[in-house]
Amino acid sequence: MASFLEIPPATDAGDSPPPDTALRRRSPSPALLATLEKKFGARFSRSTAVLLQHGTDESAYPPAPPDAVVFVTNTDEVAFVVQACAHERVPVIAFGAGSSVEGHLLAVQGGVCIDFTQMNVVLAIRPEDMTATVQAGVTRSQLDAALAGSGFFFSVDPGADATIGGMAATGASGTNTVRYGTMRDNVRSLTVITAGGEIVRTASEARKSSAGYNLTQLYCGSEGTLGLITEATVRLHPRPEITAAAVVNFPTVRAAVDCVIQAVQAGVVLARAEMLDALTIRAINAHSHLSMLERPTLCLEFGGGQAQVDEQAEWVRQIAAECGGGEFQWATRQEDRSRLWTPRHHAYFAVLQLRPGSRCLTTDACVPISALADCIEETVIDIAEHCLLAPVFGHVGDGNFHCLVLVDPNDRSEVELAEAFSQRLVRRALRHGGTSTGEHGVGLHKIGYLVEEHGEAAVAVMRSIKRALDPLDILNPGKVVTARA
Amino acid sequence: MASFLEIPPATDAGDSPPPDTALRRRSPSPALLATLEKKFGARFSRSTAVLLQHGTDESAYPPAPPDAVVFVTNTDEVAFVVQACAHERVPVIAFGAGSSVEGHLLAVQGGVCIDFTQMNVVLAIRPEDMTATVQAGVTRSQLDAALAGSGFFFSVDPGADATIGGMAATGASGTNTVRYGTMRDNVRSLTVITAGGEIVRTASEARKSSAGYNLTQLYCGSEGTLGLITEATVRLHPRPEITAAAVVNFPTVRAAVDCVIQAVQAGVVLARAEMLDALTIRAINAHSHLSMLERPTLCLEFGGGQAQVDEQAEWVRQIAAECGGGEFQWATRQEDRSRLWTPRHHAYFAVLQLRPGSRCLTTDACVPISALADCIEETVIDIAEHCLLAPVFGHVGDGNFHCLVLVDPNDRSEVELAEAFSQRLVRRALRHGGTSTGEHGVGLHKIGYLVEEHGEAAVAVMRSIKRALDPLDILNPGKVVTARA
Repeated sequence: MASFLEIPPATDAGDSPPPDTALRRRSPSPALLATLEKKFGARFSRSTAVLLQHGTDESAYPPAPPDAVVFVTNTDEVAFVVQACAHERVPVIAFGAGSSVEGHLLAVQGGVCIDFTQMNVVLAIRPEDMTATVQAGVTRSQLDAALAGSGFFFSVDPGADATIGGMAATGASGTNTVRYGTMRDNVRSLTVITAGGEIVRTASEARKSSAGYNLTQLYCGSEGTLGLITEATVRLHPRPEITAAAVVNFPTVRAAVDCVIQAVQAGVVLARAEMLDALTIRAINAHSHLSMLERPTLCLEFGGGQAQVDEQAEWVRQIAAECGGGEFQWATRQEDRSRLWTPRHHAYFAVLQLRPGSRCLTTDACVPISALADCIEETVIDIAEHCLLAPVFGHVGDGNFHCLVLVDPNDRSEVELAEAFSQRLVRRALRHGGTSTGEHGVGLHKIGYLVEEHGEAAVAVMRSIKRALDPLDILNPGKVVTARA
Repeated sequence: MASFLEIPPATDAGDSPPPDTALRRRSPSPALLATLEKKFGARFSRSTAVLLQHGTDESAYPPAPPDAVVFVTNTDEVAFVVQACAHERVPVIAFGAGSSVEGHLLAVQGGVCIDFTQMNVVLAIRPEDMTATVQAGVTRSQLDAALAGSGFFFSVDPGADATIGGMAATGASGTNTVRYGTMRDNVRSLTVITAGGEIVRTASEARKSSAGYNLTQLYCGSEGTLGLITEATVRLHPRPEITAAAVVNFPTVRAAVDCVIQAVQAGVVLARAEMLDALTIRAINAHSHLSMLERPTLCLEFGGGQAQVDEQAEWVRQIAAECGGGEFQWATRQEDRSRLWTPRHHAYFAVLQLRPGSRCLTTDACVPISALADCIEETVIDIAEHCLLAPVFGHVGDGNFHCLVLVDPNDRSEVELAEAFSQRLVRRALRHGGTSTGEHGVGLHKIGYLVEEHGEAAVAVMRSIKRALDPLDILNPGKVVTARA
């Protein structure tokens, strides 16, 4: 993606940056580089292409390459790199699939990038405990492949084929969070390298525990700023006997949201509940040569035994009708379900085709479900008032929705309009009791909203934790909060 | 309960206590007491009876009274007390229902006890968002009463009528964790007073967020050692249309455990899955004048629509039969379900009657479900070899089971045998990949196992967090880990 946002100065919420740390580059010494090269051989690189690739993500920021990249294969190697870098206070940044959309992996202060893609071994699958343990670089699709035929699946699906380690570090989620929860709900334990290069296992293999502070959840979502995740044990879920998909349109966004709220309240166990607005449907019609009604549309999925699915489908059909829903399309066979879900699967690329040559700024507001219809309606008015081209779709069951603001990356005024819209949307979400980021993480892009969202006292606690666990400020510095070390 | 265990010296895992902090009492000055008395009036007490009550829990430890008790009514008052105590480095300890079984609330270093029982207002119930916000002193039964007729319920049921704040602080769980999760899974956000007396709101009202470190989960389960929980927003669940209960016995513990594992793997959504061993059934037969077969017995519950419940009940019936299960008793009406579950509901008191005058030491091992049958079988052999009287029952779906070791509290050798058994059981659970405490917390009783369970590096991280967030070591000092400040 072409970059069009400027990397913000190295500050965090509520602080002016001390001048000497603003975008200060802390590059490894020749001796450190030699140590790493000796240890990793061909798995050490300083080639321009490799550095550029590892300083580039899916965000709108320009690349910020590290000084070196090492390709690790096990936990001990990660510990070695961190220890070596700690000695010189050189930053270390984890790199998985590179699919961050908020600038998480940009080496804004230089340093050594640890590439996890060769740590891609599925270490254990335990059907009785319904868990799998993987190296951090295993991708979603690699884990899926390893689970083929097991009767189980891993539920978190953020769209991109991200690594499990990256998803844990970001606190990612996706379309079936409404039923199976976010990454936070699906990580049982982590192996983590601390800023001192120590190996921490955050929890036992038991399903639950009250033994001490919850380190699993502290590292999960900490974006590599408190420790580097090298292995993860995740929950698996039994594949439902029957999975059914449905698509139904509504006269208004509010009616679609109401339908989902009422279904969940009635005890319907929705596996997915995605809402696409009329503009998104228009884009899909153009992209896939379809002729769907250009109205707010829900894509639903539910699963269980045949009797359960039949029963719940009937409930949803009644609720949808009461909410003014249109014809209820319905499928249970895999190929029919895929066809029905085509609109949702193709939404991103279809939307980009609305304006060839454009790039998109993706928003990530998440509000209480009771406020979702209001928040989306206000956002759609904002889009119209500012003449933006920005389809809206989202995970209705979670209160999380994304606007894809299409901009010409070379037109500064357009970019500024889009970023101003993004800022208004965050503040609107906060006014509605929501969050600046439902699932994409803070990275560089949301740092400025942390105090507005959590208050000074809470951010001070976060900063205390950062300082305590990374006193030298070497772990992905400049992201989430800064240590001001 | 009569006390029979000695309070351990003020140390934490892997440390020798600095001599000057061992059981050091840090009492408030006359000036501080006067300040509190002036602020709280009749809600301040130093009466012997009140101090004794607030230094006594359901553990086997002797009372350890605080120096004063204040009965707070809102968050600002808690902040006031903490600020006043911080000024003199005087400990502050939260008190809810007093139902801790591990010594959490004992004032081992003296200090001021904050009684939350007057902070018992249900602040908000939000049906659309399926959440409720309560003051920390609201008990489970108070929240249940407030939810009557709403169509929703709060799921975490640890047996005791604990406060929501206490349950959050302990990371409690209970019989329906297998379906609805632990307290950790059901707390959406917390209001917390820090060691500096600041008010922190840990999260927005959104269902999910990736905005910064997960403070909710850091405070949840921290047992009052990182902050004092004053309010909590918890998840609600829709009441199932139909709830069905079943009781079925098995020739062996292993067969009962296998039945639950297979049912869960088949996608049966068990709301509860409790196992009672033959000795527990014998106690219940004697206590309730029943004549149940004295075999390992499962009490099950599931819910949903009628078709779903019928379908899943049939699956479980088949699985139980394949596992050698006996006659399958079954009920759907509330009064019949209550009758069927009588064995489980009365287990604790029935067991105590096995040996009148005895007291019990309750264990809390939790292991991966794949290791549960082995771990229980080894434990039952241990019980027999040491001639202990110790029925076993537990939450099979979670891998968590409790032994109630009946002892004469006045017989030192019996008490030592029981404690030695408890220690062997913890180590057995750890060997099986489990935890020293599934749901009762660390308190005083499990501190010594933290390093064995988590390793030195992980406990060092916990200690760093404790020092960062409570540098004066005033928040429930001597529990979980010590700050060694």
